[in-house]
Amino acid sequence: MVYNIGIFGATGKVGTELIKVLYHRKYPIKNLRLFASEKSAGNVIDTPGGEIKVENADNADFRGIDIAFFAISGEWSKKFTKKAVKENCTVIDNSSAFRYDKNVPLVIPEINSHTIKDNKLIANPNCTTAIAILPLNVIYKNFGIKKIIMSSYQAASGAGAKGMEELENSTRDYLNGNPVMPKAFQHSIAFNLIPQIDIFMENGYTKEEMKVVWETRKILECEKIDISATCVRIPTFRAHAMAVTVETEQEIDLDDYRNLLNEAAGINLVDNPQKSLYPMPITSTGIYNVEVGRIRHSNIFGKNGVDFFVCGDQLLKGAALNAVQIAEALL
Amino acid sequence: MVYNIGIFGATGKVGTELIKVLYHRKYPIKNLRLFASEKSAGNVIDTPGGEIKVENADNADFRGIDIAFFAISGEWSKKFTKKAVKENCTVIDNSSAFRYDKNVPLVIPEINSHTIKDNKLIANPNCTTAIAILPLNVIYKNFGIKKIIMSSYQAASGAGAKGMEELENSTRDYLNGNPVMPKAFQHSIAFNLIPQIDIFMENGYTKEEMKVVWETRKILECEKIDISATCVRIPTFRAHAMAVTVETEQEIDLDDYRNLLNEAAGINLVDNPQKSLYPMPITSTGIYNVEVGRIRHSNIFGKNGVDFFVCGDQLLKGAALNAVQIAEALL
Repeated sequence: MVYNIGIFGATGKVGTELIKVLYHRKYPIKNLRLFASEKSAGNVIDTPGGEIKVENADNADFRGIDIAFFAISGEWSKKFTKKAVKENCTVIDNSSAFRYDKNVPLVIPEINSHTIKDNKLIANPNCTTAIAILPLNVIYKNFGIKKIIMSSYQAASGAGAKGMEELENSTRDYLNGNPVMPKAFQHSIAFNLIPQIDIFMENGYTKEEMKVVWETRKILECEKIDISATCVRIPTFRAHAMAVTVETEQEIDLDDYRNLLNEAAGINLVDNPQKSLYPMPITSTGIYNVEVGRIRHSNIFGKNGVDFFVCGDQLLKGAALNAVQIAEALL
Repeated sequence: MVYNIGIFGATGKVGTELIKVLYHRKYPIKNLRLFASEKSAGNVIDTPGGEIKVENADNADFRGIDIAFFAISGEWSKKFTKKAVKENCTVIDNSSAFRYDKNVPLVIPEINSHTIKDNKLIANPNCTTAIAILPLNVIYKNFGIKKIIMSSYQAASGAGAKGMEELENSTRDYLNGNPVMPKAFQHSIAFNLIPQIDIFMENGYTKEEMKVVWETRKILECEKIDISATCVRIPTFRAHAMAVTVETEQEIDLDDYRNLLNEAAGINLVDNPQKSLYPMPITSTGIYNVEVGRIRHSNIFGKNGVDFFVCGDQLLKGAALNAVQIAEALL
């Protein structure tokens, strides 16, 4: 069986990675069509399957497309999903538009591909959640989880190509003594950090922080886990990291946890502090697996707790890779 | 009363700030002498009090010096403290050499200057602790503290002048496509983060992380607070930030906490999320007060918990300013 694939938002950072990952993982493509906003329509993109002319996403009729990856915006997804599904197209949506709809599966294939069933709309989780949940799932399944406290170190790529360009350009400007004008972020990101990602909610958390709460609970299918996240943008390019403290239901043996991580899909155990080996953006960028390390019993929760550090490529497991893995689960 | 002052390590980043802060705060200086390693001895430093020739610290006899600031290294402090104190010199030590000695006061003047008494040796806390403990002390004194979970975002200045230079040079190298060779840090810091500061301990925490535990308890004079820290180096120049989750003894009203922070010495309340105002390195660099914001009830501990973000200049409150404040408390 081979499939007709459509990528919507093909000229963005996630779209670009989607093309690469589909070919790299030898997805059974019959025909690949690329769509983007009117501005980019008509451009020709060189793919491993040959040159492809970009079509205007707003004019898509979805006829003949078996699987559509949506990576434009939540607004766009809301507008076009019904039309796509009506044409019998399966939509894998990278936006947050449908993630909290109880009828829409939110899928990390290593964890809950069983929720896909015959749904024609599948939501791809937020990048922070997608990366942190792999080591969290290992804890949840084997030791149970009561509480999660997480602080993130999030890369510029979370704001797309314009975020990465702004990090590079504003850093150059700063080093050359030129004024730095933020556009993609609320403040200059050059040699700075910004403790705000997405808008603020009434409870004082940002929406990004609450996404971690809502999505972690939905994917683990457990509403009673208490979660507090602080999401911070830092001046790195494309790998997100999180420092995580977990209170477990049962005692957690650290060697057991390390062995389970070693066996788990999607995870590289990088935990050799004496050799200064631990997860970092420079080692986790461009790879599919997320890195997990700095594993220790928590000073707070003792043997019923574990602290760890996780780092993963925001554009891969945090976006394009997970979306392609969902498409693979459809095969 | 005016005092003869000696700065040991005067050519380093902390020493440079000590000179600036002493003059800026109009410390009653009779005579200022500057000391550094043999390599820098003989150099002339231009200070607000005139040009001063740097002396070799290893040859110091401490005679006639009333107050000595030690900012060379733990080893150096261990070697020379006894000699200085014998000459009736009061030592304010920036190293970790004596911080955990129960006979040596570890002082944040806003909190525990009463512990100085007639001690001739006073320890200056670790930079991470010094910055985070100001808002923590307000919680501790008014609501009590059971647990603290903290993740840090620490600047290159924690590794001194060579750390800051390496951040700048390695960032330029990276942007110019040149190979980056780390020296001051375990790995390249350019567009990266490193979840290791100082050496690893047997319990899997780093010494930097355990310093936060030991010093926070000592300064607050409460051994029973549970504390877990994760300390991470990020590519910023000289302001440290921390995301902090606290479980309190009593219910904490957020407006009460904000009002108390507003009244507290050494703190700027920067907590207007709707205007994207919160603590950041670019706003807290070069200022004496630490910035506190992102205040919210914790999803984990409800009304008996608070999450906040704090950012402060590592070279000022994290080092030189606090040392000068200790000297002011001696007046």
